[in-house]
Amino acid sequence: MKRVALIGTGLIGGSIGLALRRDGVEVIGFDADPSRAARAATLGALSEVARGVGEAVAGADAVFVAVPVSRVADVVVAALDGGAPVVSDVGSVKASVVARVEQERPERASAFVGGHPMAGSEQDGLDGADADLFLGATWVLTPTERTAPEAFTTVRSLVAGLGAEIVQVAPEHHDALVAVVSHVPQLAATTLMDVAATSGEQPATLLRLAAGGFRDMTRIAAGHPGIWPDICVANRDAIVRALDDYVAALAEVRGLVLTGDARGLLELLERARAARRNLPVGAETGEPLVELRVPVPDRPGVLAEVTTLPARLGVNIFDFEIVHSSEGGAGVLVLVVPESGAAAVEQGLAELGYHPARSVLE
Amino acid sequence: MKRVALIGTGLIGGSIGLALRRDGVEVIGFDADPSRAARAATLGALSEVARGVGEAVAGADAVFVAVPVSRVADVVVAALDGGAPVVSDVGSVKASVVARVEQERPERASAFVGGHPMAGSEQDGLDGADADLFLGATWVLTPTERTAPEAFTTVRSLVAGLGAEIVQVAPEHHDALVAVVSHVPQLAATTLMDVAATSGEQPATLLRLAAGGFRDMTRIAAGHPGIWPDICVANRDAIVRALDDYVAALAEVRGLVLTGDARGLLELLERARAARRNLPVGAETGEPLVELRVPVPDRPGVLAEVTTLPARLGVNIFDFEIVHSSEGGAGVLVLVVPESGAAAVEQGLAELGYHPARSVLE
Repeated sequence: MKRVALIGTGLIGGSIGLALRRDGVEVIGFDADPSRAARAATLGALSEVARGVGEAVAGADAVFVAVPVSRVADVVVAALDGGAPVVSDVGSVKASVVARVEQERPERASAFVGGHPMAGSEQDGLDGADADLFLGATWVLTPTERTAPEAFTTVRSLVAGLGAEIVQVAPEHHDALVAVVSHVPQLAATTLMDVAATSGEQPATLLRLAAGGFRDMTRIAAGHPGIWPDICVANRDAIVRALDDYVAALAEVRGLVLTGDARGLLELLERARAARRNLPVGAETGEPLVELRVPVPDRPGVLAEVTTLPARLGVNIFDFEIVHSSEGGAGVLVLVVPESGAAAVEQGLAELGYHPARSVLE
Repeated sequence: MKRVALIGTGLIGGSIGLALRRDGVEVIGFDADPSRAARAATLGALSEVARGVGEAVAGADAVFVAVPVSRVADVVVAALDGGAPVVSDVGSVKASVVARVEQERPERASAFVGGHPMAGSEQDGLDGADADLFLGATWVLTPTERTAPEAFTTVRSLVAGLGAEIVQVAPEHHDALVAVVSHVPQLAATTLMDVAATSGEQPATLLRLAAGGFRDMTRIAAGHPGIWPDICVANRDAIVRALDDYVAALAEVRGLVLTGDARGLLELLERARAARRNLPVGAETGEPLVELRVPVPDRPGVLAEVTTLPARLGVNIFDFEIVHSSEGGAGVLVLVVPESGAAAVEQGLAELGYHPARSVLE
């Protein structure tokens, strides 16, 4: 792989460029916003800036399309028309894009492999771009029966070279999955925040009672809304189905509350808790991992003290999160460390006056 | 205030005890679990362990009841029967408790002031207890027209002495507020996690696609479920109303998605984003504050580097959160620092290669 074309140089495009450049690959890029492409070149993500898709694609061994979801299909078609031997994209929705490409260019669609890295969006700022953005991240690829095996092999090896872990599913299956774990959660958080803000309560009073749990739950509502209308349009059917499932489940919960079914509520809470605790940690590792749960006061100084301890001891932190209490104030800091270093971290925490509890992860 | 009785020695009771003991107050405590009371005494939260509510209350100038919601009313009545001059509680639901106390002990109810610190729950572990748990935390007090002004003054000054900020509202109003910002969010997160986990998808695939936003939103579902069935029973009516509002709002969102109303979705997202960004920061302060938003790769090492920088520069961090992208990977680290120290932190971050964006908080 000598030369790769990048169409779109936001967070994702820029990060792909930085990683490929680090490996010595020539990267020629185009962005509809010329100043953004110029900045990507300054940051070292591009070796050359093209004046259009055709110019970028000419002579490239492969093309990544990293533009907003609503534009992906058009740009992929343009790249195929430009003679690109292999094209992949990074959009958040797959079925509608893959179907349009296969319908509009049936003779060239075999060179296209749909893709979706779970690592920020194509509209996030170039400032966050990082050659290591995809290390250990999940990258979904959605080949179909019309995809040429060589095209898939090329994209898979490019993506693996970026450090990502590949998950292969059908386009429709991808869309159903992200509706459940990404699109509906975003809409649920946004709606929850909006209901609280428009409840007619004095905002000051309402928000003084909003503790860590509420902050956690509504945090994604603080993000840039730019990509979401496009995503909702492109993934309409899967989102509506997942929203219906969510609302139906909430109706059952309402029934449990209304009838005072404490036992049913406890079962639901226990089931969800077990599932949440089984969410895999961010990084893949060959080592057995240990989870240390440390009750802490919810203060930034504490955070710095606890997060720097493993580094001081030379132990790598594989994952880290703060579990706020829904009632605010105290929280639990969860550190995931390799088993080999866990005892040292536990002892260090105890010396600082904390009381970590250990559990071994599956 | 010479002698205070504490009934219940979990996180909240223990923290009240530690703070009062630090101020030289005698604290006599009782817990239904004698080993927990003994441990509270060992940790310095109690000066004396009582063998029952009556013994604890005898001779106390004031009583805090810090037991599970379903037990609060009974214990408050027992404390009043024991002759306590002033009684307050820390339960998460107020109207049903206040009503029962006023109905069962009309002649003594004037000595009771309902309370609810937004700082962890009475069933959280004693290990997290901290004399500073309530510093800057919101503590709701719910006196009624039957509450004696002297009782309210006593409780208010005790709570202020713990460092909390007092918000005074009617019991029913409190319950409606916490339904919106605490109880329904907990149920919404739990339900979202459960829908994902029981969707029939391979858990491994589903969860590999679950990025930071999903993790943020479902984080409170990982907490101890113990208190929630009680809360749902005690605050049934307000929770059902708030759930109905939430489901009605989700139905509107479904309509926007189904009709492809990108403009309506954008308006909703923008409104929720503005509201989320206006959530007040944790601490009260006289100084003007500045928010620094720093795009960062979502890695623990980065976190340690950024959170320790202000401390190294001698600048206090007033608030701190990680805004994960719903698509995973990159995130934005939000630091709230005093205006006087912001320039130094910005420069330090720039020297480390970050690109902080500054905004002044209202």
